[in-house]
Amino acid sequence: MAATMREVAEAAGVSIATVSFVVNDSKRVAPETRRKIEDAMARLGFRRNSVARALASRRTRIVALVYPAMEHKLGGSAMEFITSAARTAGEAGYHLVLWPVSNDADELTELVGQGLVDGVLLMEVQLEDARVEVLRATQTPFALIGRSADLTGLVYVDIDFDRTMEQAVDHLYGLGHRHLVLVTGSQADASFRSYGPYVRAADAYRRLAAERGFAVVVLECGQDTDGGRAVAEEIVSTRPWTTGVLVLNEFAAPGLVSGLLRHGLRVPDDVSVLSVLTSTEMSTLVDPALTAMSSPGPELGELGVQALLRVLDGADTLPPRLLPGVLVPGGSTGPVRAGAAPVPDPSCTPRS
Amino acid sequence: MAATMREVAEAAGVSIATVSFVVNDSKRVAPETRRKIEDAMARLGFRRNSVARALASRRTRIVALVYPAMEHKLGGSAMEFITSAARTAGEAGYHLVLWPVSNDADELTELVGQGLVDGVLLMEVQLEDARVEVLRATQTPFALIGRSADLTGLVYVDIDFDRTMEQAVDHLYGLGHRHLVLVTGSQADASFRSYGPYVRAADAYRRLAAERGFAVVVLECGQDTDGGRAVAEEIVSTRPWTTGVLVLNEFAAPGLVSGLLRHGLRVPDDVSVLSVLTSTEMSTLVDPALTAMSSPGPELGELGVQALLRVLDGADTLPPRLLPGVLVPGGSTGPVRAGAAPVPDPSCTPRS
Repeated sequence: MAATMREVAEAAGVSIATVSFVVNDSKRVAPETRRKIEDAMARLGFRRNSVARALASRRTRIVALVYPAMEHKLGGSAMEFITSAARTAGEAGYHLVLWPVSNDADELTELVGQGLVDGVLLMEVQLEDARVEVLRATQTPFALIGRSADLTGLVYVDIDFDRTMEQAVDHLYGLGHRHLVLVTGSQADASFRSYGPYVRAADAYRRLAAERGFAVVVLECGQDTDGGRAVAEEIVSTRPWTTGVLVLNEFAAPGLVSGLLRHGLRVPDDVSVLSVLTSTEMSTLVDPALTAMSSPGPELGELGVQALLRVLDGADTLPPRLLPGVLVPGGSTGPVRAGAAPVPDPSCTPRS
Repeated sequence: MAATMREVAEAAGVSIATVSFVVNDSKRVAPETRRKIEDAMARLGFRRNSVARALASRRTRIVALVYPAMEHKLGGSAMEFITSAARTAGEAGYHLVLWPVSNDADELTELVGQGLVDGVLLMEVQLEDARVEVLRATQTPFALIGRSADLTGLVYVDIDFDRTMEQAVDHLYGLGHRHLVLVTGSQADASFRSYGPYVRAADAYRRLAAERGFAVVVLECGQDTDGGRAVAEEIVSTRPWTTGVLVLNEFAAPGLVSGLLRHGLRVPDDVSVLSVLTSTEMSTLVDPALTAMSSPGPELGELGVQALLRVLDGADTLPPRLLPGVLVPGGSTGPVRAGAAPVPDPSCTPRS
């Protein structure tokens, strides 16, 4: 492991800035001080130029984070996630470059072909993802945050949608709710088509509904306040017996709540709302603060980088890790309202 | 094993030097020859090696974005900003690495000493910023998003706080408001102390107040919903004659609005609220959607990278650019309520 400038500075009894002047030859340093620093560098095995070092080792110690930004906005915890990934890389002596490429195989092919990065961390993965094929075909080491449909040979970390949805449903069930709706995001936009989180969460929800015998209602709406208002309108006008809403669409959740309030419904007295996979930052912006299954964003960033670095080190790959969201109680869920629903649900008679 | 330049040259029937001109884009090559070489490179799987090229040119074409994350959360437009910077760098053939370092001169000194990056883009700048001194002392080319107090020799792009605040005050003035409060963020946290945006916006506000003869009230609150609720309480209990609030604290703005609503005040009928320097995404989460001075985040990311690349190219530096926020009308501002304020303001008699 190469010595750092900090270690050289300590060994030579000088400031890091002075070491930097010698390393970069950027400022005059007294000959005696220079000698002390050079002695310390030699003793500690300090190498001055990371580029020369990279060429010598055929490793650049740079990894890329690839995400399809601009096409759809990332969740509220994206910055936490990205910063956690950059920090984890930095602590291991790596640098993280950002490649905000569209979900475009050609652009990614060209970038990995430049030889700059040792490996790639790919996020916002679709079930059929052309970028995964590019990384396989170019033999680029990579790890996924998320999963495509075909998991053969993949190194990935992802959210545990089964456990997340089970905890979310359990929370509402425990409060007596049986007339539930799941709201996900619209898949009309190309970058959301077969978007892993929506598909996997809805699948998990359907399994839970089959086990417990409640009716499956999955609605989609746009990823913004207007989308949330529209789906509130849809729920009120077509399923007025609904008492609990799970929403996996963090930018729509505030509009969903305000849409219900505008219809004279109280949250949570008339309808409970649970935001699935969001950040505390987002949930607390709403009044009442949303009860949420909080996204394990920082943990995923850290684990994703660790998984990739294991691949680069040629170590045994880490087994896939699936992390559930964590229930963070807020003010938007409460016991089901007493008495009969104002309008009975004609489509199902759930078991108690 | 990757093909060598020699193998490409033989396959294309040209000299190695000619292949090198194409690989490094260092000399004009006839289009037909270039096509033959590129065909051979594709056929043989030749990868241009950006590291070797970097070493040859003593340039890595990598720039770093330095930001003090984890210490305080970045605004809602941070992702847009960062993605815009990464894209602009990519279009110019550069890569952007993320260095989420604390505001710690030693950590930055060590990173720039590694020789990985050609230059640094520094954001979240404080008025006295140790990192600026590190970049100067190590002779690292850099540009700022934001400004420290001493602008000597600095290349920077920033928000035009004077014009932003003037437009914000004009908007409320035009609606008849004369009893205003400016809310900024708490500077208790070290990373917010002498934080440029708060200081410059408050200074601009004081100048406007002096010109127009309204009382200066600047309140600070924590950067979250609870902070917003607390400052709403403070306004209601100590300055009930307030009719207009400008809030430069985007994570507190929703709590400020809900705090006013909880006190039975209507927004905007009783109190108008204008969120200064935020994203449309954040403003539309609130009901009513906040009237806002929208942050020019993506433009700043693009201009900041362009300014830095000019420095790296040794071209004349771009003159400093200051961009104002843009007024985005929402539902949280309206005409001042008719009739006298419920409680007169004892501290000032503003000119009409």
